[in-house]
Amino acid sequence: MPTISKKGQLMPESPIRKLVPYAEKAAKDGKQIYHLNIGQPDIKTPEVALQAVKENTVEILSYSRSEGSETYREKLAKYYDRNKISVSPKDIVVTTGASEAIAFIFGSIMDVDDEVIICEPFYANYIAFATAASIKVVPIVSNIEDNFALPAIEEFEKLITPKTKAIMICNPGNPTGCLYSEKEVKQLADIVKRHDLFLISDEVYREFTYDGNSHFSILELEGLDEHTIMIDSVSKRYSMCGARVGCLVTKNENVRHTVLKFAQARLSPPTYAQIASEAALNTPQSYFEDVKNKYIKRRDTLISELNKIDKVKVATPKGAFYCIVELPVKNADHFAQWLLESFDVDNETVMVAPASGFYSTPGIGINQIRIAYVLNRRSLVKAVNIIKKALKVYKD
Amino acid sequence: MPTISKKGQLMPESPIRKLVPYAEKAAKDGKQIYHLNIGQPDIKTPEVALQAVKENTVEILSYSRSEGSETYREKLAKYYDRNKISVSPKDIVVTTGASEAIAFIFGSIMDVDDEVIICEPFYANYIAFATAASIKVVPIVSNIEDNFALPAIEEFEKLITPKTKAIMICNPGNPTGCLYSEKEVKQLADIVKRHDLFLISDEVYREFTYDGNSHFSILELEGLDEHTIMIDSVSKRYSMCGARVGCLVTKNENVRHTVLKFAQARLSPPTYAQIASEAALNTPQSYFEDVKNKYIKRRDTLISELNKIDKVKVATPKGAFYCIVELPVKNADHFAQWLLESFDVDNETVMVAPASGFYSTPGIGINQIRIAYVLNRRSLVKAVNIIKKALKVYKD
Ligand SMILES: Cc1ncc(COP(=O)(O)O)c(C=O)c1O
Ligand SMILES: Cc1ncc(COP(=O)(O)O)c(C=O)c1O
Repeated sequence: MPTISKKGQLMPESPIRKLVPYAEKAAKDGKQIYHLNIGQPDIKTPEVALQAVKENTVEILSYSRSEGSETYREKLAKYYDRNKISVSPKDIVVTTGASEAIAFIFGSIMDVDDEVIICEPFYANYIAFATAASIKVVPIVSNIEDNFALPAIEEFEKLITPKTKAIMICNPGNPTGCLYSEKEVKQLADIVKRHDLFLISDEVYREFTYDGNSHFSILELEGLDEHTIMIDSVSKRYSMCGARVGCLVTKNENVRHTVLKFAQARLSPPTYAQIASEAALNTPQSYFEDVKNKYIKRRDTLISELNKIDKVKVATPKGAFYCIVELPVKNADHFAQWLLESFDVDNETVMVAPASGFYSTPGIGINQIRIAYVLNRRSLVKAVNIIKKALKVYKD
Repeated sequence: MPTISKKGQLMPESPIRKLVPYAEKAAKDGKQIYHLNIGQPDIKTPEVALQAVKENTVEILSYSRSEGSETYREKLAKYYDRNKISVSPKDIVVTTGASEAIAFIFGSIMDVDDEVIICEPFYANYIAFATAASIKVVPIVSNIEDNFALPAIEEFEKLITPKTKAIMICNPGNPTGCLYSEKEVKQLADIVKRHDLFLISDEVYREFTYDGNSHFSILELEGLDEHTIMIDSVSKRYSMCGARVGCLVTKNENVRHTVLKFAQARLSPPTYAQIASEAALNTPQSYFEDVKNKYIKRRDTLISELNKIDKVKVATPKGAFYCIVELPVKNADHFAQWLLESFDVDNETVMVAPASGFYSTPGIGINQIRIAYVLNRRSLVKAVNIIKKALKVYKD
């Protein structure tokens, strides 16, 4: 029997996926599950976007340009302009989700065994894309104690080797909810310039910043055009995860030219989704304000409820819609499974994402979980209450 | 300035892409161009598919399952059943076009420097996906003289090394229009079994077979379930290239499990496009008969017109909608460029795809072009007439 590749064996399984059979079993047994584990917002997609697709006049559903449709890229450039990011349409390559942008970037700037430094905990699929490209993620630990702030510059410098090609951040952060300040981003600018590295920033949660903090994009850095590559997506901004439209933006022509070769190989991003994404750019500002207010209230509820539980530590997210929670358990993987398998309060239980999947340093984060506050406040209160009761009886 | 990867440098540019600036210039100069270079059919997308998207009731455009929506996979399995291919929904992984299926398969079964044997000329992007995965395409030449029939088994065996992981075919073939017989496919079965290899078959043109020939899928092979991986797409079948929906089908559970890890990393295939693809399965049979009749007439017109030109050799396509044409020129790349730059008949000219991009053995096929018969017959006659006149004056 022919065998699969070593790379295929190394590809990580999603940390949540492992729990799915237990969740399915619990649901079958009639338990109601509060899903704190997912990054799929419950927010409605803007009406303008849905409507544009319903009213489309396509007769031949053709390939679009590999770099994305002209009109979409033009309007997208204007959107960035309104957000203090000055780019032209030619700096943008439209991709099939931010996911594809990550894959294209890894392929375009890194060869087998090259290294990218990423603050952990990080979005778990970075490891998957790195494995697929046969490159190495070098983690640099950030801590719940200081709200997952950017590690000190010296810590980065210790990790730089001749194989290091890039530093990658996620800002605002999934799974941490951290939001790097302008000062922090400028520190990174300094290192990448000194060591001639790329700086990749995943900014798919740009709109989701709280407490009066505003987002500082790496594309606002001056004199760094050859170094910076920004990743974006419509998935979270417009609650349009199923569209599969993202992009990467860089002023480095070499990178763009190379990325375009990857983009040409897969022909084009999805056409209907580009129609939706283009229309979504007309979403009224009030939509974002409503959404943001909703998330702030949810976050506040969540954090205050969590803080009521003995020996639970939680960082305060300043962006995105996740937070990392440290629990008084030895192994959160097991706790998460146990919640689904063996615990309920009035036939209700909770599904959380064990944080171990967001770390690559072995042994770190095993007593942490990630909570996504993509449920309404009443559900969040109930869900946290279930966790509280569970911790009282759980033995590990 | 940080540099791009070696891999990125090696990524091939689309052979047609190089001509685009010349085509744009010609169009700007007011020339009308007959596009014989593209694989984008001019056929209308089935109304049922377009309508389903217009009538969709999505309110939150969510991620679908990574392996594709349940209902789509169920209906797709039934479609294969109707086509003599017995599969169950769980054997199917829905992908973002056949393109993504190719990338997932290469990643799942091959490591750096592993080899896949492919008959050339082949779909140019196979090389791009191989380059992206750091694997090697080992070409085996098929010839215009015998209508691009499958090379002899001995020729394949000569190329098998310890690094060989798979043999890949495209059936019906792009760019050749060849259609492998049941006997030919069974010969391949024999080799892959003997040498414990995978057999990958790109069957995106399955519906397009002519002259009473029917298609024989590798999934019809008996006793080969662990070896066969089939690639498919809605792009050409329903003239839905912009949907970006394809799939891979295999009964090898190990492969599927591994592919699924790649699929999970990119989260999900596009949601609107899956709605369209699911509805497209209800396309009436008459649609395909109409389309097929159209292509047969076009092919017949095209071949008979080409045969009228002195010293031009053309294979007769039995499937898909392409043919390879050998021209009495030294360098078809140059001829194709010259057609756009320096030639016209009454202000009309032709864009063709130089075949060199479909070969990886250096020096082969440089006097060949690929013609896609995706234009109406009147245009095809005019276009061939332009080529005929051009050959009279062209000097290389
Ligand atoms: C940080 C981060 N980057 C990228 C992605 C992938 O997003 P997309 O849906 O655009 O592929 C996600 C999705 O959850 C994410 O959280
Ligand atoms: C042989 C072959 N395979 C795969 C593809 C890619 O198709 P898709 O649009 O499904 O990605 C094409 C597109 O032209 C093709 O000709």
